[in-house]
Amino acid sequence: MKHLEKSPYFFVNKNVARKNIKKMQEKADRSNTVFRPHFKTHQSLETAQIYRQLGITKITVSSVEMAYFFAGAGFKDITIGIPANLRLINEINKLSEQINLQIVLSDAATPLNKIDQLSEKLKIYIEIDTGYHRSGIDINNRDEIAVLYKKIHDSKKEFTGFFSHFGNTYSASSIQEILNIYHHSVKKLTELKNLYNTSVSIGDTPSSSLLKSFEGVDEIRPGNFVYYDLMQYYLGVCKLSDISAYLVAPVIAKYPERKELVIHAGAVHLSKEYIEINQQKIFGKIARLENNAIKGMEPETSLISLSQEHGIVACSDEFFEKTRLYDNIAVIPVHSCLTANLMK
Amino acid sequence: MKHLEKSPYFFVNKNVARKNIKKMQEKADRSNTVFRPHFKTHQSLETAQIYRQLGITKITVSSVEMAYFFAGAGFKDITIGIPANLRLINEINKLSEQINLQIVLSDAATPLNKIDQLSEKLKIYIEIDTGYHRSGIDINNRDEIAVLYKKIHDSKKEFTGFFSHFGNTYSASSIQEILNIYHHSVKKLTELKNLYNTSVSIGDTPSSSLLKSFEGVDEIRPGNFVYYDLMQYYLGVCKLSDISAYLVAPVIAKYPERKELVIHAGAVHLSKEYIEINQQKIFGKIARLENNAIKGMEPETSLISLSQEHGIVACSDEFFEKTRLYDNIAVIPVHSCLTANLMK
Repeated sequence: MKHLEKSPYFFVNKNVARKNIKKMQEKADRSNTVFRPHFKTHQSLETAQIYRQLGITKITVSSVEMAYFFAGAGFKDITIGIPANLRLINEINKLSEQINLQIVLSDAATPLNKIDQLSEKLKIYIEIDTGYHRSGIDINNRDEIAVLYKKIHDSKKEFTGFFSHFGNTYSASSIQEILNIYHHSVKKLTELKNLYNTSVSIGDTPSSSLLKSFEGVDEIRPGNFVYYDLMQYYLGVCKLSDISAYLVAPVIAKYPERKELVIHAGAVHLSKEYIEINQQKIFGKIARLENNAIKGMEPETSLISLSQEHGIVACSDEFFEKTRLYDNIAVIPVHSCLTANLMK
Repeated sequence: MKHLEKSPYFFVNKNVARKNIKKMQEKADRSNTVFRPHFKTHQSLETAQIYRQLGITKITVSSVEMAYFFAGAGFKDITIGIPANLRLINEINKLSEQINLQIVLSDAATPLNKIDQLSEKLKIYIEIDTGYHRSGIDINNRDEIAVLYKKIHDSKKEFTGFFSHFGNTYSASSIQEILNIYHHSVKKLTELKNLYNTSVSIGDTPSSSLLKSFEGVDEIRPGNFVYYDLMQYYLGVCKLSDISAYLVAPVIAKYPERKELVIHAGAVHLSKEYIEINQQKIFGKIARLENNAIKGMEPETSLISLSQEHGIVACSDEFFEKTRLYDNIAVIPVHSCLTANLMK
């Protein structure tokens, strides 16, 4: 309903987002690493425009549909960074006629006849699992890697390198652990890279944010870093002031006897992602803003419960007193990718 | 992208949905209770059409935006079943010129001048908290109820009754506990109803599904029952074959060494809602289908992990063996309302 005031709404501070992008770009440049950010985080033409203004034209997406969307928005070099769904072979081939398209194969058992049907214009990555155990061929399973490589080779398709996502950094319990995962994984991928005389593409926000440059890595694909969020903040990966996106939501009821506010912000706005602090599930924190940028968070004040459209904020005395019915408050999301997806 | 095969996609078995609606309608009719289903569950014009075919024209929604959407689709009697966001007073008043509109006030401190500004065409509920502690004035706080009632009366607006949502039934640990919550809450609401000589509107899927009729209750507003989901199944509220909606998702990788499938179905399709069974988080179960209806679930097979676009299914030997790469499989969602919202 275009005529409605949007309430709640998702706000992106473009200056902070631009600063995050520039910082990552400079670090990639330092090691001559291609910077191919993941656009699943934002799925937003406005945020895409910030990237474009900074000269970034190579991107990663997480579905065929999203590839079409950003191709339509003028991005001509796209990697679909999820095991390719070869049910959509026609859609993939068609898009490869229009742009430089890379896809990822993650299973040695991918049928040769499917690979045969792929367009020769596509470039194909092999996904390697270095320890996250989500998708990709186990890095120690050299036989399976060779099997898939041979199929790509036999069907005369262009093999473009090894692809990996160190998603295990998201559940690390310290900065040192994130760095250990990065260095261990890069070391093993480099052996593979040298064996096949090819390139490696990696990229997760925790390690990409902590590293100063990416020696030996040909490409990085972080996504979340453009907005960051509570998860990254509590991981120690960003400062609060690096978080560029938040949800603005109205207070729709106040209950003094339980020092709780009800806000119009639920699972349909923030997702049900939570972090646990002192055995309390936290679905968001309340930001202190200055010129629409996050400067801090309200102490002892947390979004402790979410239903579909309602959120309950347990408040400090001070925050409860100063906040009025129908005030808009800024919620820092736990996982900005999911919030951005819901609010897109 | 209209030209793409949708993958994954959300499937609603209309026959099963229609059966669920008719059953609820018949139970409401038995006690002359108005049946005003909650449309936040589906937010779908196709599912709305099933309701309309069954003669149901009064509905509940959970935001001003959703009220405009369904008013545009021809529904002329709508309750916005969330504490009214009086930042949107102009939008609310404007809509009340076009349809019969009910709103809910949930805070005794609602400013009189705001209530004064509301259109006289609106009807106003007072929300009562009977124990869920999300929103509404505590049912034992008779003074606050009287204060808000007086404000509505003084500003010459139409008070239409008491409104309550027994959301605590969703976390009950037995059918008996759900029934106890229902009967206890209805008893207390009935005292209030008699005191003010007015009506009561209630409605949550767990209690509405278990009751045979709703004596003493003027209106029910369940929503989830049209689709049901794993949460309701494990609560004991529905049978598996009552679940009318599921997500169809392709297998994009298979890993024999860990008997896991990767499917293209993540938090952006299913939400991060989970249930815990034997200390294992379950984000969905795999359906056994017959003529596109759910007949059972694959034993020892669960969606155990979700990232933004990927899901990991831990499989029984049998299911792993029989499922091929790129097969579409049917995932029963934990919370169909959130899945429907994401896939709308």
